[in-house]
Amino acid sequence: MNQKRVMLRVAYDGTHYHGWQVQPNANTIEAELNLHLSELLKEKIQVIGASRTDAGVHALGNVAVFDTTARMPGEKISYALNQRLPEDIRIQESKEVPLDFHPRHCSSEKTYEYHIYNSRFPMPIGRQYHYFTYYKMDVDKMREAAAYLVGEHDFKSFCSIKTEAETTVRHIYGIEIIQHGCEIILCIRGGGFLYNMVRIIAGTLMQVAQGFYEPAHVKEILEACDREQAGPTAPACGLTLVGIDFKEEK
Amino acid sequence: MNQKRVMLRVAYDGTHYHGWQVQPNANTIEAELNLHLSELLKEKIQVIGASRTDAGVHALGNVAVFDTTARMPGEKISYALNQRLPEDIRIQESKEVPLDFHPRHCSSEKTYEYHIYNSRFPMPIGRQYHYFTYYKMDVDKMREAAAYLVGEHDFKSFCSIKTEAETTVRHIYGIEIIQHGCEIILCIRGGGFLYNMVRIIAGTLMQVAQGFYEPAHVKEILEACDREQAGPTAPACGLTLVGIDFKEEK
Repeated sequence: MNQKRVMLRVAYDGTHYHGWQVQPNANTIEAELNLHLSELLKEKIQVIGASRTDAGVHALGNVAVFDTTARMPGEKISYALNQRLPEDIRIQESKEVPLDFHPRHCSSEKTYEYHIYNSRFPMPIGRQYHYFTYYKMDVDKMREAAAYLVGEHDFKSFCSIKTEAETTVRHIYGIEIIQHGCEIILCIRGGGFLYNMVRIIAGTLMQVAQGFYEPAHVKEILEACDREQAGPTAPACGLTLVGIDFKEEK
Repeated sequence: MNQKRVMLRVAYDGTHYHGWQVQPNANTIEAELNLHLSELLKEKIQVIGASRTDAGVHALGNVAVFDTTARMPGEKISYALNQRLPEDIRIQESKEVPLDFHPRHCSSEKTYEYHIYNSRFPMPIGRQYHYFTYYKMDVDKMREAAAYLVGEHDFKSFCSIKTEAETTVRHIYGIEIIQHGCEIILCIRGGGFLYNMVRIIAGTLMQVAQGFYEPAHVKEILEACDREQAGPTAPACGLTLVGIDFKEEK
């Protein structure tokens, strides 16, 4: 029987999940995919995810691959799998990829958004997808501070001390900060991110926006290579993995 | 003791409510407001709502008024009440208004939005706030059809047969249809709406967008004054009451 590798683009509302990665006694996105793919294709399936998002983090387009000998064409799997998945997980696309395509071993551009709702009072609509704060935010200062983070840097200050990464050097391609009424959206693109990196960047930029320190202090935080110098890890609910572009895939 | 009338602007995620209006053995927005205001102000409070939204319908800014002899200043009530309300209801503003201000007896402009997510597959993020359909939609035809509804007309065809309204003549000030990627937003402004009117308009415009009939047929539906001629009532989850402007209040 011929084996093939299938890629999935997966959207999920992370509110009720303990993140992507399989763990004992907890509901995870990976576990749901493994369970329902195995039932659908009648063989044991184990997906490999591109981004192991944390508990409570959302995705519009995370990516996973798996191998199967099932006959079902790659592009049909999305339709059949969506019939089985819970309503807070939906495959957006499925297709065959080369057998050696690995979503964590090839170069890619990841886009994350951090959504802040900044007003006197919380907004119930969309509360699952944003972080609410009533502290006044200076978005121009946030933009000024963000500029220090763009480029290739050692992001040790912006990484959970729990990391197991070999190097803490990463490349941020761009940070855009958009304001629509009470919503502030941080859009961050990069070649890869450390554990909690986007949430620590969001927490630090919010401190700048609230006047805890000047934008230029972010340069000092970066140079300190010390997690203690940066701001808090912003809450997971505000974070969404928007998408991943693979350079080799096209 | 001096009596005063206080106006509330109320935002809510209607997903888990049986609509605005108090009813036996059901969770409603009005019942939550009455309960928590009565506990806060230590007297029996009964709010009067501007718009009695249906089960599952959301609001960014519905309006309610109530009378109280409590000393708490009108503008402080929002802060205190938000401490008590469930997280899916939040007061956006509270203030004193004249004792004769009645939110249903004075002229106002109401704005509703109907959100459609139009793609091959459902999107888990925001699924509480939009209606998903995979049928291809022609937004230009939708706009052409919508134009027939703008102005003062007898909307009997676009009203639930359960209505108790004395007249079915209403004035729609404008319908704007916005498309952002997979999202289609119908934004409808009017002096007042009949029971289910916005949802029947949305259901009818979706039928036009899907090619069930030509845009000009909407004029015939309107002239028929017969609910059977119009499209189905679109699902409640896609509907949000955006806001109400009172002409006399300013």
